[in-house]
Amino acid sequence: MSVHFLGSLLLSHSFLANPLKIFVDSSKKQDKKRSVGIHNSRTQVLECNNNYAKFCRPDYPDQFSCVPISEIQTQPVPVHKDGEDEEDEDLWVTMKDEARSNVHQEPILSNYYFSAILSHDVIESALADHLSVKLSDSSLPSGTLYDLFMSVLTDDSEIVTAVKDDLRAVKERDPACISYVQCFLNFKGFLGCQAHRIAHKLWSQDRKVVALVIQNRVSEVCALDIHPGAKIGRGILLDHATGVVIGETAVIGNNVSILHNVTLGGTGKISGDRHPKIGDGVLIGAGTCVLGNVRIGDGAKIGAGSVVLRDVPARTTAVGNPAKLIGGKQNPVKLDKIPGLTMDHTSDISEWSDYVI
Amino acid sequence: MSVHFLGSLLLSHSFLANPLKIFVDSSKKQDKKRSVGIHNSRTQVLECNNNYAKFCRPDYPDQFSCVPISEIQTQPVPVHKDGEDEEDEDLWVTMKDEARSNVHQEPILSNYYFSAILSHDVIESALADHLSVKLSDSSLPSGTLYDLFMSVLTDDSEIVTAVKDDLRAVKERDPACISYVQCFLNFKGFLGCQAHRIAHKLWSQDRKVVALVIQNRVSEVCALDIHPGAKIGRGILLDHATGVVIGETAVIGNNVSILHNVTLGGTGKISGDRHPKIGDGVLIGAGTCVLGNVRIGDGAKIGAGSVVLRDVPARTTAVGNPAKLIGGKQNPVKLDKIPGLTMDHTSDISEWSDYVI
Amino acid sequence: MSVHFLGSLLLSHSFLANPLKIFVDSSKKQDKKRSVGIHNSRTQVLECNNNYAKFCRPDYPDQFSCVPISEIQTQPVPVHKDGEDEEDEDLWVTMKDEARSNVHQEPILSNYYFSAILSHDVIESALADHLSVKLSDSSLPSGTLYDLFMSVLTDDSEIVTAVKDDLRAVKERDPACISYVQCFLNFKGFLGCQAHRIAHKLWSQDRKVVALVIQNRVSEVCALDIHPGAKIGRGILLDHATGVVIGETAVIGNNVSILHNVTLGGTGKISGDRHPKIGDGVLIGAGTCVLGNVRIGDGAKIGAGSVVLRDVPARTTAVGNPAKLIGGKQNPVKLDKIPGLTMDHTSDISEWSDYVI
Repeated sequence: MSVHFLGSLLLSHSFLANPLKIFVDSSKKQDKKRSVGIHNSRTQVLECNNNYAKFCRPDYPDQFSCVPISEIQTQPVPVHKDGEDEEDEDLWVTMKDEARSNVHQEPILSNYYFSAILSHDVIESALADHLSVKLSDSSLPSGTLYDLFMSVLTDDSEIVTAVKDDLRAVKERDPACISYVQCFLNFKGFLGCQAHRIAHKLWSQDRKVVALVIQNRVSEVCALDIHPGAKIGRGILLDHATGVVIGETAVIGNNVSILHNVTLGGTGKISGDRHPKIGDGVLIGAGTCVLGNVRIGDGAKIGAGSVVLRDVPARTTAVGNPAKLIGGKQNPVKLDKIPGLTMDHTSDISEWSDYVI
Repeated sequence: MSVHFLGSLLLSHSFLANPLKIFVDSSKKQDKKRSVGIHNSRTQVLECNNNYAKFCRPDYPDQFSCVPISEIQTQPVPVHKDGEDEEDEDLWVTMKDEARSNVHQEPILSNYYFSAILSHDVIESALADHLSVKLSDSSLPSGTLYDLFMSVLTDDSEIVTAVKDDLRAVKERDPACISYVQCFLNFKGFLGCQAHRIAHKLWSQDRKVVALVIQNRVSEVCALDIHPGAKIGRGILLDHATGVVIGETAVIGNNVSILHNVTLGGTGKISGDRHPKIGDGVLIGAGTCVLGNVRIGDGAKIGAGSVVLRDVPARTTAVGNPAKLIGGKQNPVKLDKIPGLTMDHTSDISEWSDYVI
Repeated sequence: MSVHFLGSLLLSHSFLANPLKIFVDSSKKQDKKRSVGIHNSRTQVLECNNNYAKFCRPDYPDQFSCVPISEIQTQPVPVHKDGEDEEDEDLWVTMKDEARSNVHQEPILSNYYFSAILSHDVIESALADHLSVKLSDSSLPSGTLYDLFMSVLTDDSEIVTAVKDDLRAVKERDPACISYVQCFLNFKGFLGCQAHRIAHKLWSQDRKVVALVIQNRVSEVCALDIHPGAKIGRGILLDHATGVVIGETAVIGNNVSILHNVTLGGTGKISGDRHPKIGDGVLIGAGTCVLGNVRIGDGAKIGAGSVVLRDVPARTTAVGNPAKLIGGKQNPVKLDKIPGLTMDHTSDISEWSDYVI
């Protein structure tokens, strides 16, 4: 058999050809957990997708392996290594350093940076504070929101891990992101996603009323409308974020990048499971609608402005209205890199549109 | 002649084949009113569309008839029955009950619910208060807006009726809507639409300056831009609402459902009547542009991401860019249910896109 | 040779066939300036496009010539005539008159108009004040923003000229715009664009941190996301503006009209020059995505809902997903009017879509 190394962003063909092989353990875990009920459902998604994330995050040196796939498959990487906590602490230290440097450059922002970043020992309180200021209004005081957000973040370390993964994802993938602290303070896609993580936790605890209030405030402040029922993985980039709508029963894997004005919508026919399921490493271009309980396979790319009403196989590229597969339905071109990470919106697609102009 | 029963959402073919027959009386009324001038123009639209609404609102038991169409056509249902006022009062009672139940579940929202819902005896003052809080800013105090909104709502009972119809429409059609009070507090599409109803009244009273200020604040707060000149019927669902733009001379019938990022735009060539006319019971999918003074017939469906520059016949389905009719221009497939009510975005369309992925 | 008169919006063929001829002087100036570095780059764009603006702004009587093109080409119009300063002063006088008339009609808005318009002697302080109120929040006090905005506007008279050009552009092109003061107070596309001009100046002075804070606040308040690095000409109409995204290395010429939900995006492959270059007089319809470092030629029109990944030649019309040229790639139909000024979204396009419905 051929031996593949995970250099750069290259997807191992054998890994992707047999994706179930590597997930055997985690899917077993899932089955056990399924009986626990809705409370743990997001956790399941995170866990189920977790191993995949190890391979497709190119910039986590400690998580990124250069051993042959064959060995990885038999030696699953542990999920929370001690090293990670240290790295996570380092992230907040790095962000405070960035903040100090920013204040040095721009003293008129001293108060802003002090209250949002420099006065906080940990990222949890900074996030709760920043979100509560953004989402408060005269009828929803920021103090009430801060207490609520802090209680969730203190309780659920997985959300905090996902927050940090998202920060790294934005910094890596968005050429316009110049620092972690810029993303933390300014990117409404990042902030809306973190508010959703909190709202989803509350939703899963059957605190639907307050979860829906958070959804609404994020929709007003960030123009980003994610139903608190939606399950969203780690390492997510919601770039620009305006006009994004994600429905109640949508599921989004890890390391997914979604541009603005993307809809993961229902079909309206049924009130049950009616929204798309987005695999790991998927890239969805601006203005695209994916409708119905369809599956977008791992590592797939959907071009800007597409309308997708059918499953898209893993590692293929769908474009157009209605969406077509690049290379054709029978023999679609297979991607060898992970579009959710490379953010390559146009290769293949650009050639496809060559004849028109 | 064949006898049809209005079971479930089934459209009567004979009713739709002769839509003018049933409107004879109301169109006469219109002619009389036309001389009164622009002041009453929205009222005309509402009245002209009113009878149709009786048939296509499935959940108004007292308005929904199971007698054969032939009999209905000779016995028009009266517009405002006594029963309706009672039902309308019941709605606010129901909403206060929902609010008390929500506060019981989520005591941290007590103040919010008290000021927004529980302190109000009637829906008018609650709506004026909630909208004025949402739309105020440091240069537009909420008190000024509250007085303005209250004066319009107290004056025009038709707006209040339309508000209640919209609440019922959202609750019925949006599977993500769990209560009337959730819609009232949280759905920016609902709130933006009600602010528009007030702005439209002010516009028709030649109070254009303040009408345009309201339009702007709704555009900033809800990312929903409806020109105050646009005429909008009853039972409207603006789902998610981000990015919706509705032009000055657009007319929207009753029981219409419009998703986010929909444009009912002008062509820019002319400054007169230049925007689309949307019939009753129409469903327009996310991200669709309808441009120019074109007519979308009653009960038509327009798929997500479509670009429509031409009339769409009643009860047909248009999809694509540029839009095509499902079944072809000569012999389009006719819908037998009302898409504005069923919210069925993808049947027929999904088959159409089958060959591509 | 044929002699053309610039009647109405007619483009002179000979002018467009030899666009470089008329730009000889200004392009020489550019070369000299190029060595000065990034600081002046927006200035270059403005100057390089300046002469073109003289011809395509139909409503500047003093800038609009009826002499034959052949004579104009040998007698370039001076850029800043004394008359312009006077005209600019007149604009603010006109706006204060409009404001007084509005307050007379709508006394409840007295305070609003006084603080936003009537208390200001010059447009600079009014703009700084209005923007700082709009963009402030509890962590970014309006006083800090006002001082910052005033310092930039006092420093850079070209921004103030561009602000006035934009006001005139909106008033001329948007049939829904009833006065300059309505645009100034209410049009979030106009306000977001002016905030961008300030942010771009700060970005070019290497004050990136505060420039990015402004970008974020505009994205939250106006749902309009323009990277401060983007270079934008004069006479710009961002109509409705919701969902517009303009990337870091995008360049937009003069007299361009862009509708809502338009993306001038990157391809994600490269971190350098990766965004579209939009020529003078271009019109881009709602919901369109232009991706990558492609060039949209002067006077081109892009229909609503298009996906453009390739260059579009000057004076042609591109539509569809992927975009096609009206008339075909080999022999596209040439426009004889400037779509960025006429705002004619649908002629040619409407015929193209005729066969579908």
